[in-house]
Amino acid sequence: MTVTLDLNPDRLFPADPEMRALAREIYAEVKDLPILSPHGHVDPRLLLDNEPFADPTTLFLTFDHYVFRMLHANGVDLATVGVGTADPVDPREAWRILCTNWHVLEGTASGYWLTDEFVSLFGIDEEPSAQSADRLYDQIAEKLATEEFRPRALFARFKIAFLATTDDPLDDLEAHAELARLHEAGELYGRVVPTWRPDRFLDPNKPGFTEAATALADSVGGDPRSLADYLRALKASRERFIKAGAISADHGVPTPYTIDLDDDALEALLVKAVDGTASEAEKRDFTGAMLVRCAQMSVEDGLVMTLHPSVFRNHSTATFERFGPDTGHDIPEQIEYTRNIRPLLEKVGLEEGFHLVLFGIDETMYSREVAPLAGFYPSVFIGAPWWFIDAPDAIIRFRSAITETAGFTRGSGFIDDTRAFLSIPTRHDMARRCDAAFLARYVMEGRLPKSSALRIIRELTVDQPARVFKLESMLSKGEK
Amino acid sequence: MTVTLDLNPDRLFPADPEMRALAREIYAEVKDLPILSPHGHVDPRLLLDNEPFADPTTLFLTFDHYVFRMLHANGVDLATVGVGTADPVDPREAWRILCTNWHVLEGTASGYWLTDEFVSLFGIDEEPSAQSADRLYDQIAEKLATEEFRPRALFARFKIAFLATTDDPLDDLEAHAELARLHEAGELYGRVVPTWRPDRFLDPNKPGFTEAATALADSVGGDPRSLADYLRALKASRERFIKAGAISADHGVPTPYTIDLDDDALEALLVKAVDGTASEAEKRDFTGAMLVRCAQMSVEDGLVMTLHPSVFRNHSTATFERFGPDTGHDIPEQIEYTRNIRPLLEKVGLEEGFHLVLFGIDETMYSREVAPLAGFYPSVFIGAPWWFIDAPDAIIRFRSAITETAGFTRGSGFIDDTRAFLSIPTRHDMARRCDAAFLARYVMEGRLPKSSALRIIRELTVDQPARVFKLESMLSKGEK
Amino acid sequence: MTVTLDLNPDRLFPADPEMRALAREIYAEVKDLPILSPHGHVDPRLLLDNEPFADPTTLFLTFDHYVFRMLHANGVDLATVGVGTADPVDPREAWRILCTNWHVLEGTASGYWLTDEFVSLFGIDEEPSAQSADRLYDQIAEKLATEEFRPRALFARFKIAFLATTDDPLDDLEAHAELARLHEAGELYGRVVPTWRPDRFLDPNKPGFTEAATALADSVGGDPRSLADYLRALKASRERFIKAGAISADHGVPTPYTIDLDDDALEALLVKAVDGTASEAEKRDFTGAMLVRCAQMSVEDGLVMTLHPSVFRNHSTATFERFGPDTGHDIPEQIEYTRNIRPLLEKVGLEEGFHLVLFGIDETMYSREVAPLAGFYPSVFIGAPWWFIDAPDAIIRFRSAITETAGFTRGSGFIDDTRAFLSIPTRHDMARRCDAAFLARYVMEGRLPKSSALRIIRELTVDQPARVFKLESMLSKGEK
Repeated sequence: MTVTLDLNPDRLFPADPEMRALAREIYAEVKDLPILSPHGHVDPRLLLDNEPFADPTTLFLTFDHYVFRMLHANGVDLATVGVGTADPVDPREAWRILCTNWHVLEGTASGYWLTDEFVSLFGIDEEPSAQSADRLYDQIAEKLATEEFRPRALFARFKIAFLATTDDPLDDLEAHAELARLHEAGELYGRVVPTWRPDRFLDPNKPGFTEAATALADSVGGDPRSLADYLRALKASRERFIKAGAISADHGVPTPYTIDLDDDALEALLVKAVDGTASEAEKRDFTGAMLVRCAQMSVEDGLVMTLHPSVFRNHSTATFERFGPDTGHDIPEQIEYTRNIRPLLEKVGLEEGFHLVLFGIDETMYSREVAPLAGFYPSVFIGAPWWFIDAPDAIIRFRSAITETAGFTRGSGFIDDTRAFLSIPTRHDMARRCDAAFLARYVMEGRLPKSSALRIIRELTVDQPARVFKLESMLSKGEK
Repeated sequence: MTVTLDLNPDRLFPADPEMRALAREIYAEVKDLPILSPHGHVDPRLLLDNEPFADPTTLFLTFDHYVFRMLHANGVDLATVGVGTADPVDPREAWRILCTNWHVLEGTASGYWLTDEFVSLFGIDEEPSAQSADRLYDQIAEKLATEEFRPRALFARFKIAFLATTDDPLDDLEAHAELARLHEAGELYGRVVPTWRPDRFLDPNKPGFTEAATALADSVGGDPRSLADYLRALKASRERFIKAGAISADHGVPTPYTIDLDDDALEALLVKAVDGTASEAEKRDFTGAMLVRCAQMSVEDGLVMTLHPSVFRNHSTATFERFGPDTGHDIPEQIEYTRNIRPLLEKVGLEEGFHLVLFGIDETMYSREVAPLAGFYPSVFIGAPWWFIDAPDAIIRFRSAITETAGFTRGSGFIDDTRAFLSIPTRHDMARRCDAAFLARYVMEGRLPKSSALRIIRELTVDQPARVFKLESMLSKGEK
Repeated sequence: MTVTLDLNPDRLFPADPEMRALAREIYAEVKDLPILSPHGHVDPRLLLDNEPFADPTTLFLTFDHYVFRMLHANGVDLATVGVGTADPVDPREAWRILCTNWHVLEGTASGYWLTDEFVSLFGIDEEPSAQSADRLYDQIAEKLATEEFRPRALFARFKIAFLATTDDPLDDLEAHAELARLHEAGELYGRVVPTWRPDRFLDPNKPGFTEAATALADSVGGDPRSLADYLRALKASRERFIKAGAISADHGVPTPYTIDLDDDALEALLVKAVDGTASEAEKRDFTGAMLVRCAQMSVEDGLVMTLHPSVFRNHSTATFERFGPDTGHDIPEQIEYTRNIRPLLEKVGLEEGFHLVLFGIDETMYSREVAPLAGFYPSVFIGAPWWFIDAPDAIIRFRSAITETAGFTRGSGFIDDTRAFLSIPTRHDMARRCDAAFLARYVMEGRLPKSSALRIIRELTVDQPARVFKLESMLSKGEK
C-alpha cells in the first residue's frame, strides 16, 4: 500500500484551534527569515568544492549517525549501508534498506527531518517503503544531478546567512579563506567561518594526545612540556581562527569539571600528560584547568566559549573498532554544572564580554542548574537542546523548564549542530515552530501580550543568537 | 452525599474535540484485543486452584501494597486492614476503612484502576464512602461467589492470551505444568508460563544467601563454593524453566552495576559470599559479575533478560519487622545505566537474539540514557514505566521522552508487573488509551499520518511485546 | 509604542474552551478565600511598624533578588539599583533601569507576579518601559503614600489569615508578642507567628559558628561544648517560640543528609565544631545528627519540621563580597532523599503527630523519591515547588509528578516562602489557578468527578495546609 507523504502546514502547532491560529500567526513572523547557524559540523569543503551530492544514500544515510543507529538497533549490519567501510556498497541497495526500514524512524526527530526534506526539497509524495524505494532513489538522484542542488545553490536557497563549521586548531583554514573570498565576491550567499575546537589538546585521554601536543607546540616552535609554549601555541591558533572569522571556541569534554590551577601545578600536569604518566585524576584536573585557561583566553580575545560535556563516546568497543567513531553509540550521562563550572565562573564569570554557552543532553539540568546560572551570571547562556533532545517535544520541555526562571533573553538561540547539510532548514524551521507553539500557549494563558509574542519570536530567531555569538558586526542589515 | 461512580468512555483522551475523536478512533483499533502480559506477579496457584476470591477486602486491599500504603500514610494502622498479621481481621471492618478513606486514592493510579474494576466488573455506581461501604461490600461479595468470578472464568473474560508469573529457580514448577496441561486441554484461556527470577542467588545481601546458595548447588549435587557448580545449577534451573515455557529471566537488583570478571576472580567472590566474609564492594562485584554471566546464559538459551534495579527495599525497619516485605515502603533511587550496564553490553550487547529490557522508576533515565542505548544496541529495549510511574501522566511523559530518540520500535510494550489479578485488564486498557492519546497528538501535529497511527497502536499492543519477549511462536494467529 | 498591561481573567487556565470553563468554575470555589501562609520571610517589623513603603524601587526591586538577578544577568550593575550598598541610589533612577529592562522578565514568574501586582493593586495599565517609567513610578508612589497601602491595611485587604515569619532562635520575639496583642485586639487582620530556624547553630560551616554556639549556650547559662547544654538551649528556644505561636521549625541545610549518633559521638563532634577543628566529614555528620535531634524535639513539642536543602549559596564570591548574601547567585543542586533522610525516618518517621515537609528545587525528586516517601510515611509531606520552580509550568509539572503516586492528601499546600509582601496574594492566586487547571484536566480526562474537583480545590487551598502545619486550632471557623 502506498502511503502518501505530505507536510501539514500547521505541523508542530498545538491542536486547540484558537491556539493553533495564534501559533501560525507568530510563526509567520519568522518563517522566511534567513538562518543563523553559529555552531555545527558542515565540512567547509562541501561548499568550496561545490560538487553535486554523490547519491541519495551518501547524502541521507551513510553520514547521518542519527539515522543509521536506528537501523542498527533494528538489526541492520552497518557495513551493508556503507558505514565505516573501505569497500563501497551499492548505494541503491543501501537505500532500499533504509526505505524498507522507514517505520523505525516514525516519531523520531530524524524521521521528521527526512520527511520535510523529501517533500520540500525533492517533491516526494509517497512514503519510503520497499515498494517505493527505487522510485524515490531515482527522483532524488535526478535532482541531485542538477545545478540547483549543488551545495552553494542550496546554501542560497536555504538562506543561510551565517554558518560556523567546527575545525581543528592546527587546520590551515585555507578552505575558509577561499569561502571568505567567495562570499566577498558575491559568489557565496552567507558567511562561513571556522570554530576553534581544541579537545585533542586538552584531554589526555584522547588517542594520540602526545603527538597532538607535540604538533601544537611545534606550530610555534615550542616545547610541549612547557606550559608557556603550550598556551602560546593555543593563543596563536585562536588568533588565526579569529582572523578567519571565528566567533567561538567549542569544547567537547567528558564532564564540565573545572579547576583553577596555578602555572606550576598545571605545567606539572602537562608534563605528565605528555609523558603519558598522568593518573586519571591528574588527566581530569589537566582538562579542567585548561578549560579555565581557555575561558581566560576568551576574555582576552572575545571568542564565545561553548561547552558540550558528558557524552560517553564509543560505548561499544567492538563497533568502534569495526566502524570507527560517530557510529551511533555515544550515550549521554548525568550532568552536574553547579559545582563543576564554579571554579571557571569564579575566575571569569563576571568579566564583561565573556560569553559561555552551556549545552547538555541531561534535561534535568535546565530548571535545576542552567537556568538559575544564566539568570545571574551575565556571561552564562543556556544552550539550546542538543543532539538527542534537539527534537520538538524536548524543545517544548526545554522552554517550559527555563522560561519561568530565565525568561527569553538568556538562551543561545537555536543551534542545529549538524553535519547533515540538507537538514539545516528543517531543523531551524522546527525550532521556529516550537517556539511559536510555546509562545502561543503563553499568550492563551494570559502570560504574554500577543504583541510581545510577535516580537519575542523574532528575538529568539535573530537577535538572541546574534547577541550571544556576537554576530552583529557580521550581519548586514537585511539579514537582521 | 452519594457521589455517582462512572466511567467516562473517553477517559485519558485529550480534551481538544478533534484530537479526542482521533484518539477514540485509534484506541478502537486495539480496545478489544487480547492481553499479552509478559511480566507480572500473579500466583499460578490462583488459576490452578480456581477458588472463588475470599472477599472484597482480601482481593482489593490486603494484598495490594499500592493501595494500603496510602491508607498507612494517612494514619491507618496496617494491622487493622489485615496486612502482615496472623490474626485475621474482620474483612468487612477493613473494607469500611478503605471506603471511608477513598479520597486518599483520588487522582492516583490505584484509584483509577479500582474505579474501573468496580464499575466494569462489579457494576458499582456509587463512590466508596463510609455510607456506601457495606452496600459495595455485599455487591462485590455476591459476585465473587458466582462461577463467572472464579479466576479462570475471569482469565478468559479478560482475554489474557499470555501470562508470565515470577518464580523461584528452585520452584518445582508443578503448578505451571498443570496449567500447561489445562491450556492444551482447552480448559484455560491463555498460556501461563513461569519467569526465572534468581535474585536470592545473586545478591549476597539477601537474607539467607548462604542457605540459598547451598540449596542451589545441592540441586545439581554440587558445591556452592564452586563457580562451575554454581553456574551449572543456574543453567539447569533455566533449562527446566524453558521447558516449562519460560520466556524471560528477571533481575531485581540494587543497582544496574555490572562488571566482567574471569572465573577465578568470580569464584573468589562466590566463596566469600557463601562464607559471609565478603565486603560490601565484593558483594556488589559479585552481583554485577553474575548479571554478566546471566546475560551470557541468555545468549545461549534465549531467555529474555529484564532488569528492575534501584529500589531501596524495606525503607522502614520497624514496619518491615512488624509487617514483612512488600508493605509499601520500597522507595526508588536514582539510576545510572550508561556506565553501569556497559560491561554487560561490551560482553554480549551485539549478540544476535539477545534481548535486554531496562526498567526503572527514575524517569530522568529515559531521554538521557535508555532511549539512546535502545536506539543503538539491537539487544536493548526500553522497559515500560514501572511501579509508581505506571500511571497515565507518567506514561505520556515516558512516550514523549523516548519517541523522538527511539521511535516506536524499541519499547517493551506495556508491562503490568502486577500481583493484582483483577487490575490486569484496566492496566492494559490504560496503556492503550495513553498510547492512543499520544499518537493522536502526533497526528494532529502533523508528525504521523493517521494511517500510521492506526497501525502503530496495534504494533505497540501486540507486535512489539511479542517481538521483544519472543512470543511469536506461542501465539496462535487469532491472538496476534 | 505603549503596550497595554492587563490581566486576563482566565490566565493560567488551559486553552481548550470546555476545559477552560471548567477550570474557571473550579477556581471560583477558592478565588476569594483567605490566605494561609505557613512559611515565608516577611519581616514582622513591617507589620508592627506599619510605615508606608518607602518607594516603588525599594518595594519591588531592591529587596527582590528574583528580580534584580535578571537585571544583573543582562548587564546591570547591582549597585546602580541599590543592592547591597550603603550609598543610597536615586530610587527613580533605579526604577527607570527596571522599566527599561522589563523585557528580561517576560515569561518569568517574577514578571507574572509584578504584572499582577501593578494591575491589581496600583491600577497600572501600561507596560513598564523607558517611556512609561516615570509615570508608573509616580502612580505607584502616590498610592504608597495613602493609608490603604500601609502594610496592615494591605494585610487585611489581602485576607492573610495566617502568616509565619522566619526567625533566629535567639530572637527576643518582641515584635511577635506585639503583633499577637494587636491581633487579639482586633487591630491586625491575621495571626502572625514566628518560625524557628536554627541553621547557624547546626551547620559549623556557617560564618561565626563558634560565636553562635557560645551565644546559644549562654542563653541557658550553659557550655557550648556540652551536648546536654546545647540541646537544652535549643529546646528552651523552641519553647519560647511555641509560646509565641510558632508552628514549625525550618532547616536550610547543604544536603538532606541525616545520621543517627549517640550522645558521646555527637558531643565529640560538637566540641570539634566549636573549637573549629572539625573536618568536612565531621561537620556534615554534626549537621546530619543534629537534624535527627531536631526531629526528636519535634516529636516532643509538636513543631512541624520543614527541610529546604541543596542550594549552593553565594556561588559568586566576588558578588558576595561586594553585595552580600541573597543577591541572586544561589544555585540549586541535585537532591537525594531516599538514603539521606532514612536515618531520621528510622528514628521518628512513624511517630504519631510528627510532620516533616520535604522541599527542594530538583524536580526529579518528586516522582522518584518524595511522592513515594509521602505515600507511605504518615509523617512525610511533599513540599510545594520552591524558589525557582514556584512558577506556573513548574507547578503543573509538580502536580503531574506527584498526584498519581500520592494523590491530593500528601502535599504541604501552597507555600509562598517570600519576603516580597506585596506578592503574597498573586502567588497564592497563581497556585489556586494552577491547581484549578490541573483538576480541570483530570475531570476532562474522566479521572475525577467534577464534584470531587470542586471539593479538592478547597482542600488543597485550606484543609491541607491547615492539617500539615497544624493550624486548625488557630483558625476561626470563618477562615476555614
